[in-house]
Amino acid sequence: MPPEIAIPPGDDCAALRVAPDRLLLFTVDQVIGDRHYVAGGPAATSPELVGRKLLARNLSDIAAMGGSPLYALVAAALGPEQDQAWLDRFFAGLLELASQWATVVVGGDLARAPHDAVASLTLVGTVAPDHVCRRTGAQPEDCLYATGRFGDSLRTGHHLTFAPRLREGQWLATQGFAKAMIDVSDGLLLDSLRICRASAVALRLDVATVPLRTAQTTAHGALTDGEDYELLFAVAAGNAGRLERDWPFPDTPLTRVGEFQVGEPVVLDTHGHPLDLGMGGFDHFRRTTFTRGESKIVDDLHRNSEP
Amino acid sequence: MPPEIAIPPGDDCAALRVAPDRLLLFTVDQVIGDRHYVAGGPAATSPELVGRKLLARNLSDIAAMGGSPLYALVAAALGPEQDQAWLDRFFAGLLELASQWATVVVGGDLARAPHDAVASLTLVGTVAPDHVCRRTGAQPEDCLYATGRFGDSLRTGHHLTFAPRLREGQWLATQGFAKAMIDVSDGLLLDSLRICRASAVALRLDVATVPLRTAQTTAHGALTDGEDYELLFAVAAGNAGRLERDWPFPDTPLTRVGEFQVGEPVVLDTHGHPLDLGMGGFDHFRRTTFTRGESKIVDDLHRNSEP
Repeated sequence: MPPEIAIPPGDDCAALRVAPDRLLLFTVDQVIGDRHYVAGGPAATSPELVGRKLLARNLSDIAAMGGSPLYALVAAALGPEQDQAWLDRFFAGLLELASQWATVVVGGDLARAPHDAVASLTLVGTVAPDHVCRRTGAQPEDCLYATGRFGDSLRTGHHLTFAPRLREGQWLATQGFAKAMIDVSDGLLLDSLRICRASAVALRLDVATVPLRTAQTTAHGALTDGEDYELLFAVAAGNAGRLERDWPFPDTPLTRVGEFQVGEPVVLDTHGHPLDLGMGGFDHFRRTTFTRGESKIVDDLHRNSEP
Repeated sequence: MPPEIAIPPGDDCAALRVAPDRLLLFTVDQVIGDRHYVAGGPAATSPELVGRKLLARNLSDIAAMGGSPLYALVAAALGPEQDQAWLDRFFAGLLELASQWATVVVGGDLARAPHDAVASLTLVGTVAPDHVCRRTGAQPEDCLYATGRFGDSLRTGHHLTFAPRLREGQWLATQGFAKAMIDVSDGLLLDSLRICRASAVALRLDVATVPLRTAQTTAHGALTDGEDYELLFAVAAGNAGRLERDWPFPDTPLTRVGEFQVGEPVVLDTHGHPLDLGMGGFDHFRRTTFTRGESKIVDDLHRNSEP
């Protein structure tokens, strides 16, 4: 029998069951000139960082499932400005990060485009079915934890140089701490709302506890800027003390930022008021998915992250 | 153990071995505005056909391995001209073809771009290890066969509406006829040369036998236009009669177009002269691949098809 879908679209990765004890994870992300990086002029992003970011974004999705990356396929549409030297540097940056995470490029497609480069990468990862972390699974009274700091990702260059939280995600998954998990690409507010929606719970977010990236970072930016690529996860209240005590990553801040509660999927402040900060430039594209035998349109099924 | 690479980059698909009796096939292809379709103006390609082509190109790669498609991931960078209606029509065309081949979209990424749309699709397929067809495997005295007709794909619209040769590929693979196989995306001449290179043989091509798409199609166009998406495959001379007798696809032309022989990988005409027709706009991008423990640059490892 061909492998069946274990996790359908709507999470950080889809998953196929290839053996009773093994899921393959699948995710795809893009980098677009003058959208995810600066394509030209004196402030142009170095090609190495463009390639690095393309892989890192996908690694972050694998991290959010508690998985390990294995294989990548890369498609690049190169513009008139992107010559062989650009391509070599783009791949050098991508492959340097790939080597750090034992990820192998197994296929690709290169073509010419009449405009600045667009590249996409499909990443295949693996995780045990017992350990996979989904967005579903958060329950009332669970705590919401976050790795790292938030906001100002674009200004500080964090979106180009961040370290994917793979080790943290794998540890949280294998130790059984993360009942639900997501990576923060569209801002802490929107991505925590996604856990609420998937898990059918409300969240009381303690905005004052959210770690800010810099002294200049505002609380608003920390909640809505996006491209933080941190992990956001639900932990049973009874495990919170042990999590904080056992956390083995001294260089990765671990912060309790909220608590789930019974209610409609909404994010509230500590006074119980809904947090509505406009959510930046988030775009409600509709996404069309197809399941055997039926075609359906799913609204906002998929994240669309834009700096 | 995580699945290992059974077929590395350099074929129509890469393959991972997920069970002793099952390979997963992986391929990725793109469609780029004003490169693979007309992006704007009165002659603009309908969005349905753009989506259809994106999937069909990948299905053709699965067909060339003798495989069956299973799952797809779609990344789309949409320009200012591509609104929700365009996206809906794009997916409708893609999903209509997907339903014909029991292919399920399991993931994707949608983002805005400052230019005309670029979309990529990663297709996962399956094939039994005993049946998979690679580019290697052609031997001297084998016959070269082709499905369908060649040339003028762009002018006739064939590149948008072609039927991927999945049934033909699966039949050839399971019946054991195809010793080596490739799909023709960059022209019969270049793609037959790729079989020669992978199999370390020469080919004597009988140009006069190559079926032309229309009465206006030239032999030169039939060999170099590209985007034919037909199958080209090596058959043992002793099986040729049985192949032609048993061929169960009355609507798909089957033509013997050449014979492999001992020699350097080169395509010769019936007089034994090397065929060098300039090979159209084929671009020698270098492609960088990465294998565990070593990084290497491979020249012309990958097809780059442009109409």
